[in-house]
Amino acid sequence: MTTDFSSLDPRIITRGREFFNSISGESPSVFNKGWWTGKVMDWAMKNEDFKVQMFRFVDVLPYLNTSESLSRHIEEYFATEDSNIPDVLKWGATKTKIGGGLVAKVLNKTIRSNIESMARQFIIGQVSKEAVKGIKKLRKDGFTFVLDLLGEATVSEKESAAYLDGYLEVLTAIQSEVHKWKPLEVSSGDLDWGHAPKVNVAVKPSAFYSQSKPVDMEGTAEGMLERIEPVYRKVMEMGGFMCIDMESLKYKEATVELYKRLRTKYPEYPHLGIVFQAYLKSVDNDVRDLLNWSREKNLPASIRLVKGAYWDYETVMAKQNGWEVPVWTHKPESDMAYERVARMILENSDICHFACASHNIRTISAVLEMATAMGVPEEKYEFQVLYGMAEPVRKGLKNVAKRVRLYCPYGDLLPGMAYLVRRLLENTANESFLKQTFADEADMDRLLENPEVTLRRQLEGKCIVPEANEGLARFQNYPIVDFTIAEERAAYPEAIARLRSSLGKKIPLYINGKDVETSDMLDSYNPANPEEVIGSVCQAGVGEVDDAVEAASKAYLTWRDVSPAERAEVLLKAAQYLKDNIHDLCAVQILEVGKQWEQAQADIGEAIDFMEYYAREMIRLGKPRRMGHAPGEMSHLFYQGKGVAAVIAPWNFPLAISVGMVSAAIVSGCPVVYKPAGISSCVGHGLVKMWKAAGLPDGVFNYCPGRGAVVGDHLVDHPDVAVIAFTGSMEVGLRIQERAAKVQPGQQQCKKVIAEMGGKNATIIDDDADLDEAVLGVLYSAFGFQGQKCSACSRVIVLDAIYDRFVERLTEAAKSVKLGPAENPANYMGPVVDRAAQENVLRYVKIAEEEGQLLVKLEASADLRATGGCYVPLTIVEKIAKDHRIAQEEVFGPILAVMRAGDMDEALDIANSTRFALTGAIYTRSPAHLERAANEFRVGNLYLNKPSVGAMVERHAFGGFKMSGVGSKSGGPDYLLQFLDPRLVCENTIRRGFAPIEEGDDWLS
Amino acid sequence: MTTDFSSLDPRIITRGREFFNSISGESPSVFNKGWWTGKVMDWAMKNEDFKVQMFRFVDVLPYLNTSESLSRHIEEYFATEDSNIPDVLKWGATKTKIGGGLVAKVLNKTIRSNIESMARQFIIGQVSKEAVKGIKKLRKDGFTFVLDLLGEATVSEKESAAYLDGYLEVLTAIQSEVHKWKPLEVSSGDLDWGHAPKVNVAVKPSAFYSQSKPVDMEGTAEGMLERIEPVYRKVMEMGGFMCIDMESLKYKEATVELYKRLRTKYPEYPHLGIVFQAYLKSVDNDVRDLLNWSREKNLPASIRLVKGAYWDYETVMAKQNGWEVPVWTHKPESDMAYERVARMILENSDICHFACASHNIRTISAVLEMATAMGVPEEKYEFQVLYGMAEPVRKGLKNVAKRVRLYCPYGDLLPGMAYLVRRLLENTANESFLKQTFADEADMDRLLENPEVTLRRQLEGKCIVPEANEGLARFQNYPIVDFTIAEERAAYPEAIARLRSSLGKKIPLYINGKDVETSDMLDSYNPANPEEVIGSVCQAGVGEVDDAVEAASKAYLTWRDVSPAERAEVLLKAAQYLKDNIHDLCAVQILEVGKQWEQAQADIGEAIDFMEYYAREMIRLGKPRRMGHAPGEMSHLFYQGKGVAAVIAPWNFPLAISVGMVSAAIVSGCPVVYKPAGISSCVGHGLVKMWKAAGLPDGVFNYCPGRGAVVGDHLVDHPDVAVIAFTGSMEVGLRIQERAAKVQPGQQQCKKVIAEMGGKNATIIDDDADLDEAVLGVLYSAFGFQGQKCSACSRVIVLDAIYDRFVERLTEAAKSVKLGPAENPANYMGPVVDRAAQENVLRYVKIAEEEGQLLVKLEASADLRATGGCYVPLTIVEKIAKDHRIAQEEVFGPILAVMRAGDMDEALDIANSTRFALTGAIYTRSPAHLERAANEFRVGNLYLNKPSVGAMVERHAFGGFKMSGVGSKSGGPDYLLQFLDPRLVCENTIRRGFAPIEEGDDWLS
Repeated sequence: MTTDFSSLDPRIITRGREFFNSISGESPSVFNKGWWTGKVMDWAMKNEDFKVQMFRFVDVLPYLNTSESLSRHIEEYFATEDSNIPDVLKWGATKTKIGGGLVAKVLNKTIRSNIESMARQFIIGQVSKEAVKGIKKLRKDGFTFVLDLLGEATVSEKESAAYLDGYLEVLTAIQSEVHKWKPLEVSSGDLDWGHAPKVNVAVKPSAFYSQSKPVDMEGTAEGMLERIEPVYRKVMEMGGFMCIDMESLKYKEATVELYKRLRTKYPEYPHLGIVFQAYLKSVDNDVRDLLNWSREKNLPASIRLVKGAYWDYETVMAKQNGWEVPVWTHKPESDMAYERVARMILENSDICHFACASHNIRTISAVLEMATAMGVPEEKYEFQVLYGMAEPVRKGLKNVAKRVRLYCPYGDLLPGMAYLVRRLLENTANESFLKQTFADEADMDRLLENPEVTLRRQLEGKCIVPEANEGLARFQNYPIVDFTIAEERAAYPEAIARLRSSLGKKIPLYINGKDVETSDMLDSYNPANPEEVIGSVCQAGVGEVDDAVEAASKAYLTWRDVSPAERAEVLLKAAQYLKDNIHDLCAVQILEVGKQWEQAQADIGEAIDFMEYYAREMIRLGKPRRMGHAPGEMSHLFYQGKGVAAVIAPWNFPLAISVGMVSAAIVSGCPVVYKPAGISSCVGHGLVKMWKAAGLPDGVFNYCPGRGAVVGDHLVDHPDVAVIAFTGSMEVGLRIQERAAKVQPGQQQCKKVIAEMGGKNATIIDDDADLDEAVLGVLYSAFGFQGQKCSACSRVIVLDAIYDRFVERLTEAAKSVKLGPAENPANYMGPVVDRAAQENVLRYVKIAEEEGQLLVKLEASADLRATGGCYVPLTIVEKIAKDHRIAQEEVFGPILAVMRAGDMDEALDIANSTRFALTGAIYTRSPAHLERAANEFRVGNLYLNKPSVGAMVERHAFGGFKMSGVGSKSGGPDYLLQFLDPRLVCENTIRRGFAPIEEGDDWLS
Repeated sequence: MTTDFSSLDPRIITRGREFFNSISGESPSVFNKGWWTGKVMDWAMKNEDFKVQMFRFVDVLPYLNTSESLSRHIEEYFATEDSNIPDVLKWGATKTKIGGGLVAKVLNKTIRSNIESMARQFIIGQVSKEAVKGIKKLRKDGFTFVLDLLGEATVSEKESAAYLDGYLEVLTAIQSEVHKWKPLEVSSGDLDWGHAPKVNVAVKPSAFYSQSKPVDMEGTAEGMLERIEPVYRKVMEMGGFMCIDMESLKYKEATVELYKRLRTKYPEYPHLGIVFQAYLKSVDNDVRDLLNWSREKNLPASIRLVKGAYWDYETVMAKQNGWEVPVWTHKPESDMAYERVARMILENSDICHFACASHNIRTISAVLEMATAMGVPEEKYEFQVLYGMAEPVRKGLKNVAKRVRLYCPYGDLLPGMAYLVRRLLENTANESFLKQTFADEADMDRLLENPEVTLRRQLEGKCIVPEANEGLARFQNYPIVDFTIAEERAAYPEAIARLRSSLGKKIPLYINGKDVETSDMLDSYNPANPEEVIGSVCQAGVGEVDDAVEAASKAYLTWRDVSPAERAEVLLKAAQYLKDNIHDLCAVQILEVGKQWEQAQADIGEAIDFMEYYAREMIRLGKPRRMGHAPGEMSHLFYQGKGVAAVIAPWNFPLAISVGMVSAAIVSGCPVVYKPAGISSCVGHGLVKMWKAAGLPDGVFNYCPGRGAVVGDHLVDHPDVAVIAFTGSMEVGLRIQERAAKVQPGQQQCKKVIAEMGGKNATIIDDDADLDEAVLGVLYSAFGFQGQKCSACSRVIVLDAIYDRFVERLTEAAKSVKLGPAENPANYMGPVVDRAAQENVLRYVKIAEEEGQLLVKLEASADLRATGGCYVPLTIVEKIAKDHRIAQEEVFGPILAVMRAGDMDEALDIANSTRFALTGAIYTRSPAHLERAANEFRVGNLYLNKPSVGAMVERHAFGGFKMSGVGSKSGGPDYLLQFLDPRLVCENTIRRGFAPIEEGDDWLS
């Protein structure tokens, strides 16, 4: 069946014109300026700043439970001079203190009720009774419905279960009413029309399974299936229809898989649907695959096609993570894809029912014309619009197509506000068809034109200006691993298997370009299975350290004079080596230190970033800077590497931190003697291979694992060491600083110590925090990689007003996670790094239990513990005061102390009350508290509404002060300076009274 | 007598046209492209780079005594691809190694003889016999002469004496011939014409007195007089004329004074003249003053008016020193001034003879017309042109004016090359009348137009674009003191007298905004007169130090949060206080530590510079920097002051270094406990007054002088001190670093130590160095402020080939200087700072005498020593090897070790052979050696063809590495970072999947 669709265009436009004419003069209620909502929409469309503030305010509103809190937020969000702000808000924002609060109370009530009524406009009911009533009214108007239970973010299995219960409850309520509803088309028997059941629900699968994650596609699909099946059974019992909604891209694959499993499990029941999003560049393939599958399995399908509601999110995430943007970047491209895919579905109408979900009259007209042209039976397609939106469109649709279904959200106003924000955004976006049609009153022909034409016009005159660069592109972080890509998921087990086939080898030292073996050896083992030896690592003695320092000293004499650009080039080659071997490198970390897949990848990615960044930094710093402007002299400041650098690295970011310190030294012109942590010496040996691959000259990098007690002080004391770069515990760091400050006989320079040490990091949960984000953020900060990060959150400081809600959700979320070996991606947390770490953490668990009150002590299963793995329980205690040991001492394990604060003053006081100042986080939606935290939460890296872990090179240049370090920031613009001595050369250019004129001279004006 | 000169213009132009016509088709030999000189001139005018290289090569040529050296320089200067370079040079530059050096030898000979013949073109003879012969020939052609002996730079009294002898010798030679010369106008009796004697010489007064300096105007004038008087007596004996030439502006006042004294001393002898330069903005006043003086004293004068030959030099010096540019910045302004002043002189022809020295036909025509219009007798004016230049002009002049005198340099080719460079520049400058007339063949009318008209045209369309700045102008160094200003010279004795009237006061501590007195006191005395007590300084004990640290700690809590701009504002106010009180502040230094006037002023100026610079730096660093470009997050890096800073200051730059360290801390948000050196605590107390005047809050600055043994360690060990900024000896610096690295009970942060320590600085003298500059540079670096600078030169490494010449000149130069109290500006060197320093230096003088061979041991006079002043001899020893103590240990006094090096390799090896790496200098005119030194002479501050002392803020950001310091640079862009902890705040700006778009986001392309 082929139809020449290009010839359809005139008919589509004609039909579109008729459509417009049929609704002429009507406007969606949301744009009605007589109402508060309409005013707000109007202001939001006129003023981008107000829009941001307004939508953020709407988002936080449900959390503002006291009049004081509401007043404060209104003031913080809206007390500006901007005349575009609705009077009632402005007045409310500035006058809340008048009249002893009475005025404020009245105003607050007005504002709250206005916004709540805005939300109600889009929501069919807050309780099931209301929903049923609303449905009845819709049906009376000739529309049918699809019901959606609000509340997407479930952070625990308890919440997922509650969500399931909510569905069952509303279905039961409908069940008792449905028999009273007459079909919309009498001819259809018990169905509304064709084969459309009267009952129709939509489910968002990720909400049913709190542990959904792309890396664990199988577990996610199974987890979703387990919870959604009861809903589906109930729907089937009622003879209804269930549609599986599509959420953000990361759940797409699991969602399709869920559909297939459910469809296969109940092959006889036809009323199951799925949604595809036309804004995804993959939509053509995705829909084609599903249609092929349906045909192959002979399992007819139903597809709702939407444009997609997560465009901002998908774009931002892709940009933040370094992924290719998965959505079309021009709106007409989505419209084109929609028409293309709609045609594909219609062409397969024999095995697929089509639900056309769009408010765009061009799109609707195109679907109608294509269906007509292809002779698709009417019962094979229907139209869907959102409840409370685009009333003229639904009216027009009813006129022409009859089969119109309204998508009806139902549920609490709290999740309802999030829904409201999304709808407001949709209505006010510049590219919104609704805004263009009803608010901007754009030209009808433009609105109806073929999106291909629109796109061509938009692209015309747009020339892509390549970013300015001097040979080297601007620094970009290495992409976060994208587990929606099946190949990525497959690569890990393969790499681990490869590694397993060659474990336990002897690992030599590497000094002056040669492997050196020693008799003293140390085994490195898998913490999940201490029987499994990763490698037997030769241990340097004092003699080998001396050899290494000598080799480095010799190399210094030439390496310091290699040009910055050439040194940078070596780093870029090394970075390429890491990119080329990333999965194998991940495998070593997964087995040697128990890193989860994505954490391992992030570690390698960070190592790459360090080299890509420091290479560029050295090129920047390597350009001599002219100082002053005096004519007759030419003065230049430039830098020289200080000398031999001893790098003493930790095991927790075994490649990233090692490579960071080592490459900074090397690119600065300082040859390195590298002592990896004993626990991660196999990972550390990766640097040998890396520098060899990069072609680094002999002696510039020397790999020198060794027992701290034997060679640690010796290396630090060595008179020929100029720089010591250390990351590790405070105790060791301070010892190094003290020893390094003592000048040894023959020492030629003052030693520079770069020390990054511990943290006792806090996260503050304000009483207006978005708990959906805060709970998951704290959980990840505290227990990611078993809490073995200097940046890990070990104290969560919760404001009184939100304490119970937060703690309850956090506790349940923690109890929902899985413990087990890192190599299984289903596990959230694995064993700690070794037996000593296990003993230390268990000691602190005991202290925590003594000092506070246990909330969670989640143990690994008895089976796992029986394997001898270094497991410790995921532990959360509350009732911790700021002078408790568990609130002051760094544990480096999965123990979280919950602390209660009366107000923000107290919270900040607690947060700042340790010797450390490394990282911190705050979750708040109060603009004033964000600003206060930025100023007064005094740590090296503070994150606002973000977890305190996962610092990325450059973006989150990392490092703390006080006893957390010496105030440098790795991955930041001042880092390399620590390895460099500045030199200045000033030439007097006057000879015989004559000075050549140079650019930049302050000569004559 | 008034004449309407505007009406003269048409006549001037007419006369000019006639002049041009009379010489039509002729061209100066220097532009004759058939000759080598003409070719070179042509290339130089076409290519600015070649011009610079060529003239520099000419300058160095006399030093290239071996074929190898000549070949190497030709290659370094000319081995480029530039097709504009004369073939013979290019060929010589690239092919010198061909043919076993034979080709090179031939080429070298050609090049050398070509350049020497260029020089000979402008020089009448190298020996007196030649000169006399040349003069005879000139007279035959109808020209008369003024003879000038080349060799301006005399660095010692011996050289000055030799210069005088040279004059006497040539005069004697002329004396034996002059009777044979017939007068040019037979009517004139024994004179050439009018009252013009046949013998005429010019003298450059500064060359006759090596200790000339503006600050010692009286001494300079007397010194010049003493030496020139014998010449004048000889001239008078011969019935000749002597003209006192005008050199650079700094000698102007002394030169005029010299003229007046000589003229007054021999009132009856009329044949004495003086020169004025029309390019000086002061020329009108200067000439008017002299004419008035002549009339008043009834001592007729003779003035030669020139445009001026030091335009580049005067401009560059003014710009480098922060002075108003003293010369006109547009060429027509000089031409206008010339005509204006010429008129003034002609108006006074009754008491002043006028020598019009110009090659500009417009100028000449104007003078002729003015003189004619005013009826000035012909014998009252004459014309002068340079020998070997502008032959057509002299020919034309002879036609119209007859009385034409040629300015004839005579003497060795070595100083002759310097003269040649100046002439070449004059001929090739774009604004040169000769170039425009004979090389560019500019339009005659343009060349003859009234310079006022030319200026108007040049200024048209030029709009002054003010420099972009954000409220604050770009940093500029505070001007170097300009002692040509009489008020400046007068201000010092006045300020010293004021200070003397109130010496010996009790000086309290200053803690938390209050004066605090102690019972322990220490007197500070004048090193030139230890009886003279400057102040009795209260000495802090441990208790006062604790109080000060406590006050600072308290102040920290608020001061750190004061905005960077506000903190900067306080520094700017403090800088203003210093500017307003500069002479009084200088006086304290002059008496308390024995600083010479200009050194004291430079110290205050540097203090001002530090504050002006750090204020701007903090504003720069105070702006949070966005990190990364990810949409959906906003990440900012900013800085926070580390905490309380202990500042431990030295006495040698008692205000500058104190203010530098203190103000850096304060502007960074770190309150200060300041311990000045005991020796300079009165200067240090100036900071109390300064910060009070600037309105600094209490507790942010605390003045805490104290005995090192009592409070030094205590302050360093204090747990509440976060930063220690120290400048002083290596021993103390290392002790501080070691102690500070030990964490004390209660200590909250790792201490940061900023230590600037010693130096053992070398200056290399290459075999092609310009010794005129090198000798004076080394002398100043080694003995300025008695060598008591960490930047002082204490080793001079001289290449074999130039060793004898350099050492001879250096020795004589050193022997020529005066020793005595710093308050007398005639003295080059004063006493060292105190009795202990005196004893230390005397110990090292003994060591130097033992290790090497004494060249100079210049003692203060017995009278001075009898006063008990802390005098030590100015000492120079040679035959010092690199392992000698005097080559390795810092003395901090006026002892200079001379070391011999076979070649540049050895010189660099010696230079780098100490534990220190602070400053260094090299004098060389080899481009390759300049580059080598820049790379391989590894010190913090390296100066090429400049003294190693006198670093200026920003331009010469100062500090060394190895044992000279920790690798920071005061007055440089990284300095403040040391007082700051970086903080990063990253906000997740996504809410509900929606992120506001920020500028700089890496959103969609």
